[in-house]
Amino acid sequence: MEMKNTSWQQRYLTSEIFTLRCKILDKPGMFAGLSDAIGSTGAHTGEIRLVALQDKYKIRDVTVYLSDKAQLKELLEKIKQTTGLQVLSVTDEILEIHRSGTIEVHSRVPIKTLTDLRMIYTPGVASVCEKIDRDPNVSLEMTGICDRVAIVTNGTAVLGLGDIGPLASLPVMEGKAAIMSEFVNVSAFPILIDTKDVDDFVETVAKISAGFGAIQMEDVAAPSCFEIEEKLQKRLDIPVFHDDQHGTATIVLAALINALKRTKKKAKNCSALILGAGAAGYAITKMLLGFGIGDIVVYDSKGPIYRGRKENMNPYKKKLARTTNKNNEKAILAKGFAGKDIFIGVSRPNMVSKEMVSSMAKAPIVLPLSNPVGEISKQEASEAGAAVTADGRDINNALAYPSIFRGALDAKAKKITIQMKLAASRKLAELAPRKHLLPDILDRNVHKKVAMEVAKAWLKSNK
Amino acid sequence: MEMKNTSWQQRYLTSEIFTLRCKILDKPGMFAGLSDAIGSTGAHTGEIRLVALQDKYKIRDVTVYLSDKAQLKELLEKIKQTTGLQVLSVTDEILEIHRSGTIEVHSRVPIKTLTDLRMIYTPGVASVCEKIDRDPNVSLEMTGICDRVAIVTNGTAVLGLGDIGPLASLPVMEGKAAIMSEFVNVSAFPILIDTKDVDDFVETVAKISAGFGAIQMEDVAAPSCFEIEEKLQKRLDIPVFHDDQHGTATIVLAALINALKRTKKKAKNCSALILGAGAAGYAITKMLLGFGIGDIVVYDSKGPIYRGRKENMNPYKKKLARTTNKNNEKAILAKGFAGKDIFIGVSRPNMVSKEMVSSMAKAPIVLPLSNPVGEISKQEASEAGAAVTADGRDINNALAYPSIFRGALDAKAKKITIQMKLAASRKLAELAPRKHLLPDILDRNVHKKVAMEVAKAWLKSNK
Repeated sequence: MEMKNTSWQQRYLTSEIFTLRCKILDKPGMFAGLSDAIGSTGAHTGEIRLVALQDKYKIRDVTVYLSDKAQLKELLEKIKQTTGLQVLSVTDEILEIHRSGTIEVHSRVPIKTLTDLRMIYTPGVASVCEKIDRDPNVSLEMTGICDRVAIVTNGTAVLGLGDIGPLASLPVMEGKAAIMSEFVNVSAFPILIDTKDVDDFVETVAKISAGFGAIQMEDVAAPSCFEIEEKLQKRLDIPVFHDDQHGTATIVLAALINALKRTKKKAKNCSALILGAGAAGYAITKMLLGFGIGDIVVYDSKGPIYRGRKENMNPYKKKLARTTNKNNEKAILAKGFAGKDIFIGVSRPNMVSKEMVSSMAKAPIVLPLSNPVGEISKQEASEAGAAVTADGRDINNALAYPSIFRGALDAKAKKITIQMKLAASRKLAELAPRKHLLPDILDRNVHKKVAMEVAKAWLKSNK
Repeated sequence: MEMKNTSWQQRYLTSEIFTLRCKILDKPGMFAGLSDAIGSTGAHTGEIRLVALQDKYKIRDVTVYLSDKAQLKELLEKIKQTTGLQVLSVTDEILEIHRSGTIEVHSRVPIKTLTDLRMIYTPGVASVCEKIDRDPNVSLEMTGICDRVAIVTNGTAVLGLGDIGPLASLPVMEGKAAIMSEFVNVSAFPILIDTKDVDDFVETVAKISAGFGAIQMEDVAAPSCFEIEEKLQKRLDIPVFHDDQHGTATIVLAALINALKRTKKKAKNCSALILGAGAAGYAITKMLLGFGIGDIVVYDSKGPIYRGRKENMNPYKKKLARTTNKNNEKAILAKGFAGKDIFIGVSRPNMVSKEMVSSMAKAPIVLPLSNPVGEISKQEASEAGAAVTADGRDINNALAYPSIFRGALDAKAKKITIQMKLAASRKLAELAPRKHLLPDILDRNVHKKVAMEVAKAWLKSNK
């Protein structure tokens, strides 16, 4: 039996999950035949359930983990050629989990008696409304605002998919809301905003903001996202947080803190090359400067951003030109790597060669984060001398935004400051197990501890 | 022991619920003393829990049902005067139930493994987004839109409280959402709209509508509510349903159907007087005409609405003038009752006298629905000869809107037609137990059966 070389971890990092309902001849060796077919395509077997016992057959549901749909086709073909095996149906588990959406709204209390109904609704509820009418601050205590986040998007920069519009982005927003509920008990709710106009977007979100304790912007394309966030935050006295910027920057810095420790580099002596000047690149740059990285050169599709550059600039790139690139470097990307301590990629797949990495300073830190495929593979980066490397699979902002929102809501913060984000990064770095850059994303205690630090950071500077 | 005359039902229809933490001397007769104090103020005892056993004392939490806060003061005074009894603390149970809000957002699936995370979120979710990008109809199946309702309000006409603005209305919207979740598994979510301008309201709701399967308008004042609903429904291809209009009209007609049956009146031979030309009055009139009530005269604060009236009119009252009041009656309210079969009040407390009811036709149906106090009490209405009477406590639109939304969502209806509302009214009337006007609001099967009829009504006329 030939088996492709995949680690246990990679097995659970495959992208496609199908359940095959199989009719298997009830004879010794038949199930082994199925296992062989799965193994020889490089797929992995997950759960196996017995569905029915028939006279001469067993019906089993077998879940397989695959890297793509071509692999499924190959597997089904192999099974077809095996005597005594038949696939009755194929279920796409990812579609199943998204069927009817991944979140729902629940009543926090059961309504079993008329008294329940009359407390939750009329006439009892009137006394709660009157209290809020007299003092709006009561709403922070006596409504769900204390836990409630609007996830707003116009779907202009969704995952690796680009501008697919608000509707097609909804499964992502639901997923983010599901994560918030599971990890930190925040009630996040997707609000699809049907406009690409900055002021229109701001106006719409502002008009519906009263019912929320914070606004999470998701998957809004740069540079609109910068302007929207600024204008919204100026107008509202609840946090406005663009996750693609700050969630990403927070988690990248957390990983970087541990990478610096491991390579015994000092932040202020480090130079970094950041490839990508969109939402993530801009925010990572600000965050790294806030943390104290010595110098950063940011590259976009036209090359390095420097003072005096004319081509393809916008007010945010101009700001970058003022605050980064101390030596006003103008080298093309291939030359820009020379002597840099840190590379962070938030651009497009396969932009970086082994040669570029080889030209970096001693023990370089290489974080090719573009999704789903990095600017260079981790393996190539290591071969080219990277001392530490991690990609978009290792560095997931779902480890950052839940605790940042939980902390901000708990502290009743009016905005999310760089101090709060730095506190989150530092705590995340601290909680990582030895030899890991980041802690376990599934560990609820991690999220709780980070949230506490975020809340403390707000309260410290806003008593 | 003196006890005020209150029925079992009224006991559970009191408006205030408090829990008293009592320190009670551990001696025979002491608890009876507490019971006496409660009974003699006219309050009622609910749950009694033992909190602690101390050397000479028992600590008990005693929940009491009261009609108002004055009664609580009186009760606490009485307990104070009783030796061996002491109240340690008082908890307002209605505030407790609303603390942190009455609804929350949950993940429909647990996120316990990296596979869960990667199916709900990236990278798995991308395939769902791509499917919707290719065919937007997939969103009806693969997102929560199929169950999701926006409860939109600007808080301009909340309960009996009037224009308290969006924020103070939030507990009501949460209550309505909690009811939707509990009764029919609809995920309703409150969206507070911070504007009183019709077009601004329409624009804001339209811009966020893509993420919802239906729009529930709540507590928006007339006449803006009519215009908003019309404009929104014209613009959107999902149902827009103003509950204060149509929910109320649906449940009123359901009760009226059984009242007509009980009094052996035929709809087409009946004349009705409707007091109140706001959201509810307007919608009830249209609904009753749709059902076939012979004639209706609608009164507002200026008297009857008739063709040619100039004072205090708006386009909606002009429409009423054209479709109601066949004889163009102009009599003042006191004279308007003469000979009418049906009175429906959706105006203000205590507007109607016994004399007015006495002047109605034989076996009149009297529904004084203003909240929290009716246009006339049920007792007075009965004394004045009403054959059937019910007030705002008996006729609750929470028995109508959940099943209407469930049915509309299940049928993927593009709007809510009068046929759907009539189907709901008829089924609700049919499901009422003998001698009742309406079925049990807490019976989930009632909601399910009505939803089915609503869905059928849409599918029948829109195949």
